[in-house]
Parts: sequence; structure tokens; C-alpha cells
Amino acid sequence: MTSFSGKRLYVALVHHPVIDKNGATIASAVTNLDLHDIARACRTYGVKRYYVITPLDDQIVLIKRILDHWVIGAGGDYNPKRRQALALIRVVAAFDEMLTDITGEEGYRPQTVATSARRHAGSLSYRRLREMLDDPTPVVLAFGTAWGLSDTFMAEADHRLDPLTGAGAYNHLSVRSAVSIILDRLLGG
Amino acid sequence: MTSFSGKRLYVALVHHPVIDKNGATIASAVTNLDLHDIARACRTYGVKRYYVITPLDDQIVLIKRILDHWVIGAGGDYNPKRRQALALIRVVAAFDEMLTDITGEEGYRPQTVATSARRHAGSLSYRRLREMLDDPTPVVLAFGTAWGLSDTFMAEADHRLDPLTGAGAYNHLSVRSAVSIILDRLLGG
Repeated sequence: MTSFSGKRLYVALVHHPVIDKNGATIASAVTNLDLHDIARACRTYGVKRYYVITPLDDQIVLIKRILDHWVIGAGGDYNPKRRQALALIRVVAAFDEMLTDITGEEGYRPQTVATSARRHAGSLSYRRLREMLDDPTPVVLAFGTAWGLSDTFMAEADHRLDPLTGAGAYNHLSVRSAVSIILDRLLGG
Repeated sequence: MTSFSGKRLYVALVHHPVIDKNGATIASAVTNLDLHDIARACRTYGVKRYYVITPLDDQIVLIKRILDHWVIGAGGDYNPKRRQALALIRVVAAFDEMLTDITGEEGYRPQTVATSARRHAGSLSYRRLREMLDDPTPVVLAFGTAWGLSDTFMAEADHRLDPLTGAGAYNHLSVRSAVSIILDRLLGG
């Protein structure tokens, strides 16, 4: 794996369809640090692009304003390393819009891999997904905000990834932590 | 390593002495999500306690107010998983105060391991630190906020840990990401 550059791995942060505390499907609000922390991890590990997916118009406007500040505005002059990270972000209204975008650029429809804190039958191991990243087919790794991706979304993805497990039954990482750890497992030296 | 429970690993988040963008030693402000994200990762991976270190009285008051909300107040009723995580936090004014605290409870002075995004001569590998965690001596893993731990702090620690490396020269993870990845490397299954 030493020659792998991570150039065909995409990260998608999904704000709809996700579930709330009670299991209802919602569109969650964007968290500012999800943009920064996940973009920095994506840039560090060589992810090709970081898609932020929300159907809410006001959220799209908000994200674009934040990105303008850091990518073309004063924030990027103050902290050029932050500019390099946030330049990886593209905001789209739906997961399918992202798939069309990637397929157009890559010439292949990407394989979709959904992540979850729960175990699903037949889920991919980290080792298997590392092997898949050697293929020319691009891969999108989808992460849910709020209480996670909806059951329908999980079922419709091409693959589900093994959950992260720690020292015991407790397994409640932030999405920022989960993305960081999974990128290290897939692309870390 | 399968029998290791992580019970003798401590995490310290240092707000002084750390450096700012220009290399000056400062006391940084506490970031709310550093409390939540790092506590959740510590609970998931079986860290024994998460020390938040700041010499600033108003910051100590602020952190204790946040912890009261989640550990004994309404936040913990709303989200008991969050209570379990934030209950790992102890706020102290200085790194030495933490060492005295741990030494009193464990009966051994802990080994201190400082982390950095830069490589230091003779730094510990992740494999070597995993082995050290099998010993009865407790270990404190220290992380710097802002632009990282001061040179003096780095030099005075018992050990320095290898930096995380990604796909290329860019290496600007948030402290939340760095803690999460390092705990997974040391304690992950």
C-alpha cells in the first residue's frame, strides 16, 4: 500500500437523511468544526474531495460564506494551511448530486461505503476497504451527522464498513473523531 | 495486547505552556468541543481520566460550569452517554498538580509522553508505547492546544511520541483528531 496516494477516496458528510435521538429522519444543522476538523484530516490523509451534503438552502448559504472567508478571504491570508484544507470542501444538496459530480470527473461511478457505530451483516473490514482503494474505481465514504445515517441510506449504499470499537461497550465518538480514525486506518502510514 | 484495558493511560490537554502562531508561549482559551470530543474518545478507548489543564481562573470556572451541566445537571439526563464521557474530566491549574494527583492514586509517578506534529530525535514509536502500556507504571499522554506544546515542555517530558503522518507534507490535524487517532493506534482493536 506504500504507493497509494489516497487520490480516489472521497468523504461525504451527510446532514440528510440522518436520524435524531428518537430515530426520526431529519435534516441536521451544519456544525462549523465539522467543516474545519474533517477538512484538515482529509487534507492530511490525501482525500480527493470532502462533500458536505445538506438540502437546506440557508445552510448552503452559511457554509459557502464560511468557505469564502477561509478559501478566498481574510481567513486564508491569516492561516494558509486552513485555506488548503477548506479548499477540499464542495457543498451539494443531495448525495446523488455528488455521485453525478464524481462520476463526471472520474469516468467511473464511485462505490459507496456507509459508516455506522452499529455492526451490519456482511460489513467490510478495514483491510478489505484498503484493498479496494487500490482499484481504479473511486470510493465515497459516507458519514452521518446527528444520530447517524438513516436505515434506508445504510441499506442503499453499496457497502457498509465495520464499526469502530474501543475498549468496551461504550462507542459514542463524535463524527469528527470517527472520520479522523477511519482515514488513519485506511490511509495512515 | 488483547487483555489490555487501557486503565493506566491518562490524557492531558494542555492550555499552558503552549505556543501561538508566532512561537510565543501563551495560555490558550478552552474550546468547548475539545471537552466533548476528547472525553468521548477517552471513554470509547478506556482512558482512565482526561485532565484539562489551564492556569486561568475564569477558564476553570467556565469548564466546571459546563461539566456540572452534563455530569450532574439537565444535560446528563438528556444524554446519559455524554454524562459518562464528561465524567472522565478533571480540571487542574498545572501539569504538576495532575502528576501529584495521579501519583497519589496509583502509587507510581506516571511516565509523561509529549505529542507534537514535528519529529523529535529519539521519539517513541506507537508500537513501543503500546508495549509500555503493559507495564504497571501509569502513562500520561500530553497534547497541546493552539500551535502546540512549548519547546521547554517537550524537552522536560520523559518521552516524545512519533508525529502522525498522512499522505504527504501537510500535517495540520485538530487536537481533537490527533487525540482520537493516537488513542485508536494505542488502544484500538
